[in-house]
Amino acid sequence: MVGWRVHDGAPVRVALLGVGRMGSAIGRLVTTKPSLTLVGAVDPRVEVCGRDLGEVIGLDQRLGTPVVGGLDQLFSSAHPDVVVQAACSTMRDAAHDLLACVRQGADVVSIAEELSWPWAQSPAMATHLDEVARRHGVTVLGTGVNPGFVLDLLVVALTGVCQRVDAISATRVNDLSPYGPTVLRTQGVGLTPEAFAAGLADGSVVGHVGFPESIAMVAAALGWVVERVDQVREPIVASVARETAFVRVEPGMVAGCNHTAVGWVGGVPRLRLVHPQQVCPEAEGIATGDTIEIRGVPDLRLSGSPEIPGGVATTALAVNMIPHVRGAAPGLVSMLDLPVPAALAGDVLRTARA
Amino acid sequence: MVGWRVHDGAPVRVALLGVGRMGSAIGRLVTTKPSLTLVGAVDPRVEVCGRDLGEVIGLDQRLGTPVVGGLDQLFSSAHPDVVVQAACSTMRDAAHDLLACVRQGADVVSIAEELSWPWAQSPAMATHLDEVARRHGVTVLGTGVNPGFVLDLLVVALTGVCQRVDAISATRVNDLSPYGPTVLRTQGVGLTPEAFAAGLADGSVVGHVGFPESIAMVAAALGWVVERVDQVREPIVASVARETAFVRVEPGMVAGCNHTAVGWVGGVPRLRLVHPQQVCPEAEGIATGDTIEIRGVPDLRLSGSPEIPGGVATTALAVNMIPHVRGAAPGLVSMLDLPVPAALAGDVLRTARA
Repeated sequence: MVGWRVHDGAPVRVALLGVGRMGSAIGRLVTTKPSLTLVGAVDPRVEVCGRDLGEVIGLDQRLGTPVVGGLDQLFSSAHPDVVVQAACSTMRDAAHDLLACVRQGADVVSIAEELSWPWAQSPAMATHLDEVARRHGVTVLGTGVNPGFVLDLLVVALTGVCQRVDAISATRVNDLSPYGPTVLRTQGVGLTPEAFAAGLADGSVVGHVGFPESIAMVAAALGWVVERVDQVREPIVASVARETAFVRVEPGMVAGCNHTAVGWVGGVPRLRLVHPQQVCPEAEGIATGDTIEIRGVPDLRLSGSPEIPGGVATTALAVNMIPHVRGAAPGLVSMLDLPVPAALAGDVLRTARA
Repeated sequence: MVGWRVHDGAPVRVALLGVGRMGSAIGRLVTTKPSLTLVGAVDPRVEVCGRDLGEVIGLDQRLGTPVVGGLDQLFSSAHPDVVVQAACSTMRDAAHDLLACVRQGADVVSIAEELSWPWAQSPAMATHLDEVARRHGVTVLGTGVNPGFVLDLLVVALTGVCQRVDAISATRVNDLSPYGPTVLRTQGVGLTPEAFAAGLADGSVVGHVGFPESIAMVAAALGWVVERVDQVREPIVASVARETAFVRVEPGMVAGCNHTAVGWVGGVPRLRLVHPQQVCPEAEGIATGDTIEIRGVPDLRLSGSPEIPGGVATTALAVNMIPHVRGAAPGLVSMLDLPVPAALAGDVLRTARA
């Protein structure tokens, strides 16, 4: 390969599957990249279906193409090269649409959490999706800030400078204050500690979605065989009142969920991921941030504060990975299979393969 | 792809080209990895040639194979799959041996600084090497801590979560105290400020080797076209005496070289790399460490102290990249073309391609 070559073809045609908060942000970002062009979107919700795509995603201009209700309509009108899926979290919810896109010959980037390492929870479906993608010569990638980057890909990259890795600990402390009722409910924000416990039991409080994926991804990269994953979800109980636009948490009530996962390798707890999510952490002097610590040869510690902002970063990754997905071998792939992500900062796409 | 598959073949046969300090460390590390086997080494220096390889690289056991004087002997006896080149810094010095390895059908990992982005300073030779490597179906990679990781690959990876990048600043403050006379001389350690200036003029003081490579690599990843690179090398003048096993620096004398490179893109200084190298920075309260700052959407800052140790990290990267090089498409590649580095921490090699 002669460095990276300028991709001198037409802009890549990108379509959106889902124009909620994340899909809309991804769509807006696509329109800022000269090497990409936004050609359509699918979203069956009555409040958006049929309306102009530019209007729906919050551009200050119409795009002259409506949001359509189904993938058939999208493919017959917009002919996308790549579909970005931003409509769900699980393989179960994602699979039907993923297969439809693949069968139409489109590459797919999905921000569904489980797609970041689909072999963790849906190995049979992942195998099937991989086979269909290969047969149609297209590539499917799951990505996002977490799972997909902070607590897995970045961890893996740092182990690259290690001669030996004895244990890894990675912590992401973030702020849920910008988020609305749906997210807050899944973290138990505003509940009593008793209601939080009941929510854990009945599955309405879930904590972070993505630990099985992150642990399996790091383990696969390092060649570790994980025997067991222990997950603990504990309420973060407020000592002072914490208030956002969406919720007021009185002292003694739950401000968030401290979710921890530990992966055991060879009888030892080698991989510890910690992700407390709460509203207004600063109200009690808690700094947000990302920290990765590796014990081994050498010992390493890298950290940043505040945390890499989740929504912005997931949006960026979904767009920035498009050239890598276009250049990849066919199949269901992960962030471990592709070159490191890089911001699309120039006017041209660069492609690794000459 | 179905996750990463266990490579169930025989261990990869690795040979060393150069058994100086770095080559020996790489050789020792290879012997700790069950998925790799050290099969031979070339080094024409009379003090090592003909001696048992295990003895030469500092193992506590003989390996039963001697260090040989030339690549012909190596290939006729050891049949390596991969050769790790740790004998030089420039493409000019590396090229002859690289071509010889490639023509014998071996993949190559080189820690020569210029090989980390060979298109920066030797584009014609890089094109030739790429062609020959493709013709022989093998892969050639340059890697190392810097250039190769801290001030380029890690920077690129972090931009992956950015929607927009306005400017990048990355700083690596390290400690030259462990290094011997050869390295200290190239940084001007122990000179008067006047002799330092004369050394810059006559080329005996060089500062860091690798800025053109790091800047070109980051720019290529982001799609930036660099118009100009400004490099400045300034003496770090000691205020107090600094002493190592190899040098004593009196107050007023030079303790190291503060080397900075700035890449201009679109008339703006967008990429600033700073790498002060000195002995005993702690003597004047200077903390070592690595810091990456990105201004854009979002702003990002990630840092770690002390710095990622250079020798340990370059050794690790040279070994950890072997599976990626084995699995790569033929040609001359860079760290931007391959999956993220990962520690070889398990008993098995995992390969990305099914």
